[in-house]
Amino acid sequence: MATAGKVIKCKAAVAWEAGKPLSIEEVEVAPPQAMEVRVKILYTALCHTDVYFWEAKGQTPVFPRILGHEAGGIVESVGEGVTELAPGDHVLPVFTGECKECAHCKSEESNMCDLLRINVDRGVMIGDGQSRFTINGKPIFHFVGTSTFSEYTVIHVGCLAKINPEAPLDKVCILSCGISTGLGATLNVAKPTKGSTVAIFGLGAVGLAAMEGARLSGASRIIGVDLNPAKYEQAKKFGCTDFVNPKDYSKPVQEVLIEMTNGGLDRAVECTGHIDAMISAFECVHDGWGVAVLVGVPHKEAVFKTSPMNFLSERTLKGTFFGNYKPRTDLPNVVEMYMRKELELEKFITHSVPFSQINTAFDLMLKGESLRCIMRMEE
Amino acid sequence: MATAGKVIKCKAAVAWEAGKPLSIEEVEVAPPQAMEVRVKILYTALCHTDVYFWEAKGQTPVFPRILGHEAGGIVESVGEGVTELAPGDHVLPVFTGECKECAHCKSEESNMCDLLRINVDRGVMIGDGQSRFTINGKPIFHFVGTSTFSEYTVIHVGCLAKINPEAPLDKVCILSCGISTGLGATLNVAKPTKGSTVAIFGLGAVGLAAMEGARLSGASRIIGVDLNPAKYEQAKKFGCTDFVNPKDYSKPVQEVLIEMTNGGLDRAVECTGHIDAMISAFECVHDGWGVAVLVGVPHKEAVFKTSPMNFLSERTLKGTFFGNYKPRTDLPNVVEMYMRKELELEKFITHSVPFSQINTAFDLMLKGESLRCIMRMEE
Ligand SMILES: NC(=O)c1ccc[n+]([C@@H]2O[C@H](COP(=O)([O-])OP(=O)(O)OC[C@H]3O[C@@H](n4cnc5c(N)ncnc54)[C@H](O)[C@@H]3O)[C@@H](O)[C@H]2O)c1
Ligand SMILES: NC(=O)c1ccc[n+]([C@@H]2O[C@H](COP(=O)([O-])OP(=O)(O)OC[C@H]3O[C@@H](n4cnc5c(N)ncnc54)[C@H](O)[C@@H]3O)[C@@H](O)[C@H]2O)c1
Ligand SMILES: [Zn+2]
Ligand SMILES: [Zn+2]
Ligand SMILES: [Zn+2]
Ligand SMILES: [Zn+2]
Repeated sequence: MATAGKVIKCKAAVAWEAGKPLSIEEVEVAPPQAMEVRVKILYTALCHTDVYFWEAKGQTPVFPRILGHEAGGIVESVGEGVTELAPGDHVLPVFTGECKECAHCKSEESNMCDLLRINVDRGVMIGDGQSRFTINGKPIFHFVGTSTFSEYTVIHVGCLAKINPEAPLDKVCILSCGISTGLGATLNVAKPTKGSTVAIFGLGAVGLAAMEGARLSGASRIIGVDLNPAKYEQAKKFGCTDFVNPKDYSKPVQEVLIEMTNGGLDRAVECTGHIDAMISAFECVHDGWGVAVLVGVPHKEAVFKTSPMNFLSERTLKGTFFGNYKPRTDLPNVVEMYMRKELELEKFITHSVPFSQINTAFDLMLKGESLRCIMRMEE
Repeated sequence: MATAGKVIKCKAAVAWEAGKPLSIEEVEVAPPQAMEVRVKILYTALCHTDVYFWEAKGQTPVFPRILGHEAGGIVESVGEGVTELAPGDHVLPVFTGECKECAHCKSEESNMCDLLRINVDRGVMIGDGQSRFTINGKPIFHFVGTSTFSEYTVIHVGCLAKINPEAPLDKVCILSCGISTGLGATLNVAKPTKGSTVAIFGLGAVGLAAMEGARLSGASRIIGVDLNPAKYEQAKKFGCTDFVNPKDYSKPVQEVLIEMTNGGLDRAVECTGHIDAMISAFECVHDGWGVAVLVGVPHKEAVFKTSPMNFLSERTLKGTFFGNYKPRTDLPNVVEMYMRKELELEKFITHSVPFSQINTAFDLMLKGESLRCIMRMEE
């Protein structure tokens, strides 16, 4: 490519300060260094995590920064040592990586790569500790190694999944984060068998993706649990057969669920980030075989409390990070699930705006109106 | 048999009152009713659970009672409807049963039979709510459906495992309870792969059986954790490669173990019944793939507390009851493991006394001198 090895000037949405609207700026994107790849982003979506780090209420403020981590793009050029990707390849950036060499990458069970595990405070590339973005020579920080709110971005090769070039990037871009997290929590970790009963706590995008996993597994009954009753209508599209609002009962919701299911659920997946829901999700599963999976990210001080007898009566509690998917190894197969029309992604995409209207996407998410809003880099 | 259908008079050790030495009495043992089996006990062992219910400190006092639940015997006669067992069959009684018809028995994962699940307060047969033991016509209560401290006892067919008649009952009798519990906790629930690192918390009979499971799994490193340093010597026979006494450190033992193993254990099995050890066992396993299994029976008010982040970083916590073995289906195979000389039972048997000296067996256990003391019904 004519641009390879050169600085590219392009548009990016820069967060200059916590909570202030992003502004579209012309940025300089340096060429990829060793083990890095420069990617032309075609579509990017917005996830709650972008909003949290933009608000920077509980998080370390790292500004000015280019946020964004759910996206689909095409490789523009590759740095030294990159052999698995070449210009023109279609890729999904991922906020956590797969080096293929550490103990976690070598384990069949873990996806928590030692080298490329998510780091939300680092705003630079791991190779040289520098940013690849500048405005008039002044560095702009990266976000979780992806920074997809830019027409071009530089990403470590270990954080890019090479996918089927026929997959529509405006749909599969949402597999970069939350949707895969919820889906994998059910398919890879909870693993309900056909005919199982499954409870999903929290019916945001992650919970609905977990529900999609339950539907794909052939669950016979899928109970959605949310404090917001408005969530039921949308959840029906994802296979929700019953809805329970904990606020409608004076007793703990786990007791309500146990009564509804004659002893407890076969599986429960928690996608709220709230400790009460985590405890309820565990305590509502059936003794003897029930499995509960935690997905939501809790407050730092949260403490999980339960009677150890709940374990001794043969319940299992697990948690997951990115749905236990290894980004490079597994994400291409999730894309194929969509291509085979098993996995339905369209129902997650409630909105679409040109990239220039990125602040509208933030508003929609803050108001709770969108599940996923896709931003088109080319208007 | 000449005795079938008749009351049998024989010797039994009766606990008349909490904490008072047992006394050997002549008791009448009624014939088995529907779905019941009368068993001639040849060998019985003593387990902590017998001692707890004899002391009746935290437990409901049920006296006079015939204790005992680890044993090996031969079927004397069977009641109506019993088709799977016949006089002469060799059997191991088990304190929990397998009806083969409830949801738990039909599940591949659970062994917590709805009908025959352990009930420590019931002192009678479930069929008619009566005792089969009397002394001069006055009923003596049963214990966990087994009451093996008697030359003859009556047991529900669902609580008897039919085993290889060539297996020596004076050895395999210890598979009725604690040894199978610990062994199964490792083999069926923790499931370490070859070369794994495993920590065992609590080096009593149950913990050493869990350790035997780790040895059989080909664990490369087996760390024993106990507050009593005297336990290390014996544990070496079970494959213990390292020993850690939490009292030797000012920091929590999970931190010590994580340092020793460069990030944590692959598996941990808790066999103490103490909540601190339960929490340490969970928190010492490696992120990404670590699995901890709880076996010990805690105090009723105990609360398990941990940060939910320990789950989200992909640790799994499970508990087990009787090592997840289904008594009738699985125990015969555990006996075969012994017959194939894989499982070593001799090292658990530290003492042997005639039945008439049962109070010596209690003393040995109370002083912490025995792992298992076998009582021979025929002197
Ligand atoms: N582990 C991962 O890899 C990963 C990845 C992405 C997101 N997440 C986490 O997943 C969680 C869900 O994300 P989301 O984007 O779907 O969030 P969201 O805010 O859109 O949805 C959360 C839902 O939970 C409901 N809720 C809150 N408290 C509840 C309670 N006590 N009981 C029942 N329902 C309750 C809310 O009403 C809401 O509908 C968040 O904690 C997020 O940080 C985890
Ligand atoms: N789940 C089941 O089916 C089942 C069956 C039988 C026994 N059990 C339970 O298993 C547990 C062990 O039984 P056992 O007969 O081996 O008991 P035991 O008393 O012989 O052994 C327990 C060991 O744990 C050690 N210990 C106590 N607190 C500790 C701590 N905080 N850290 C480290 N070590 C500690 C003691 O020093 C002792 O050596 C008991 O709780 C028993 O009730 C469970
Ligand atoms: Zn790695
Ligand atoms: Zn996200
Ligand atoms: Zn049953
Ligand atoms: Zn026992």
